[in-house]
Amino acid sequence: MNITQIEAAAARLQGHARVTPLLSSPFLDEIAGRRVFVKAECLQHTGSFKYRGAYSALSALATETRAQGVIAFSSGNHAQGVAYAARQHGVPAVIIMPSDAPKLKIANTRAYGAEVVLYDRATEDRDAIGDALARERGLTLIKPFDNAEVIAGQGTTGLEIAAQARAMGVEAADVLVCCGGGGLTSGIALALEAHAPGLRARPVEPQGFDDVARSLATGTAQRNSTMSSSICDAIVTPAPGLMTLPLMQRLCGPGLAVSDDDALRAMALAFSRLKIVVEPGGAVALAAALFHPDQIAGDAVIAVASGGNVDTDTFTMALARFG
Amino acid sequence: MNITQIEAAAARLQGHARVTPLLSSPFLDEIAGRRVFVKAECLQHTGSFKYRGAYSALSALATETRAQGVIAFSSGNHAQGVAYAARQHGVPAVIIMPSDAPKLKIANTRAYGAEVVLYDRATEDRDAIGDALARERGLTLIKPFDNAEVIAGQGTTGLEIAAQARAMGVEAADVLVCCGGGGLTSGIALALEAHAPGLRARPVEPQGFDDVARSLATGTAQRNSTMSSSICDAIVTPAPGLMTLPLMQRLCGPGLAVSDDDALRAMALAFSRLKIVVEPGGAVALAAALFHPDQIAGDAVIAVASGGNVDTDTFTMALARFG
Repeated sequence: MNITQIEAAAARLQGHARVTPLLSSPFLDEIAGRRVFVKAECLQHTGSFKYRGAYSALSALATETRAQGVIAFSSGNHAQGVAYAARQHGVPAVIIMPSDAPKLKIANTRAYGAEVVLYDRATEDRDAIGDALARERGLTLIKPFDNAEVIAGQGTTGLEIAAQARAMGVEAADVLVCCGGGGLTSGIALALEAHAPGLRARPVEPQGFDDVARSLATGTAQRNSTMSSSICDAIVTPAPGLMTLPLMQRLCGPGLAVSDDDALRAMALAFSRLKIVVEPGGAVALAAALFHPDQIAGDAVIAVASGGNVDTDTFTMALARFG
Repeated sequence: MNITQIEAAAARLQGHARVTPLLSSPFLDEIAGRRVFVKAECLQHTGSFKYRGAYSALSALATETRAQGVIAFSSGNHAQGVAYAARQHGVPAVIIMPSDAPKLKIANTRAYGAEVVLYDRATEDRDAIGDALARERGLTLIKPFDNAEVIAGQGTTGLEIAAQARAMGVEAADVLVCCGGGGLTSGIALALEAHAPGLRARPVEPQGFDDVARSLATGTAQRNSTMSSSICDAIVTPAPGLMTLPLMQRLCGPGLAVSDDDALRAMALAFSRLKIVVEPGGAVALAAALFHPDQIAGDAVIAVASGGNVDTDTFTMALARFG
């Protein structure tokens, strides 16, 4: 992986992915005790950065390969990103989801034009179903993070951050990134290394699911002990990616972890002060910027708001408790 | 008023006002039956387009005049725009508000650095208080819409729409604008006349408060019969502006009016499909685009989401009823 791949992805995404704004508010600066900039990637197509990686991967395929279609395993943001990018390329997408996935996510993924194949988590083997379908139809698997073109696509977020931070006069700062498998974090880190060496990417995870932070601290890949019961479901993965961890080890600062309540509180502040809708998993970086100022150095901090696909009940609860 | 004033305002606003994104969603296109583009001006500094006009007016003042400070009558978005623009210029701002204005709006205006002077609506004369203060301290009054530099500042929104629509391949469309006194509508109309002649501005108002639509239809200035009881309070004014109405008469298409429920429904869709927070008065243009498709021509429509300063209770109610 290198910067050339990210720049090539940016060229392919030109005119397709949105250049999302870098937002700020004096009210947030006051809470954090430093200037806070928020990369509003929740405003990306399909409501999260995942569209960038999906479009990058699809656009990098050979035309004949792509024409046969793509397949992905996801019940969340990656599914919607792959479905919409496939539709824009005019090729079929199959998304494998557990049958107990939220109805709204299934409906949205279908509405973006994908064929959703449901499986029973208790009795069926997801990989076997996917492998059989892929072989039968010649579909290409788009992995959510361990794929160079996906990482390159997510890295285009970092190219924009580098340019936007410079325009704001920010030359040195931590760039806090909501981190699951590490595709967004490692992609941004690579982009910053080349284009804004004073900016340093740092992963932010939910407390209790900080496999990346522990992997960076110990020098070896660590797993989460459980996958269940985080409100930040969008960024909970069992372990760092095989491709992403070495990149993060080479380029990232220490990881941070925030509580569910901090994520909800950050969502309420993003509502009132930035006028954006952020999902819990997409709010952990802003939460770290606002509520863990002692773990951050410098007079400015940049936080990526990575997604906004939150249901009404969860959002209303965040406003009721912290609005 | 002419395009030169808007272009001069744009030069002064450069690096200060945000270039807000033009958003879209295939889900909204499907509801409207045509492509829908949303100019997300709720993401502007202070949460509404009013910052543009305020900054434009302040930056156009002679240095010595500006240094003495500015004054405005407003309990809403204009107050916050003037307060923040004054702070950025390092000059004092006095905002005259009724003592029964929402506490949050008073607190926000103060937090942006303004001195808030409260008056009793029942017993005191707002204009007399303002005049006395202005004379005593040499303050310059910044009117909310009947001011050429304010209209020019709001018109910079139209310059951005012209460029962004062209980049999206939209050459002909109605541009629906949430309309109170008409500063934003007339400014955008002037910008489009010069830079995107295929785009036509049209005012959108709350039903029952459609003074501008009726003024355009009858050819003479019409007043609203009441000022009370619209959820779209941010854009309810007694009558069109003296400067803005002739501009709208010359340049705008027919006005539209939407119900409070349509505004709330549009807010819920902006939440779920665009991930932006829009206030009721800022949602009427999107509501018209989505729910009055028969009153619009062409295969694309552009709606300005003019502000996002909505309290938690109102937003939660919109999601509960229409989310």
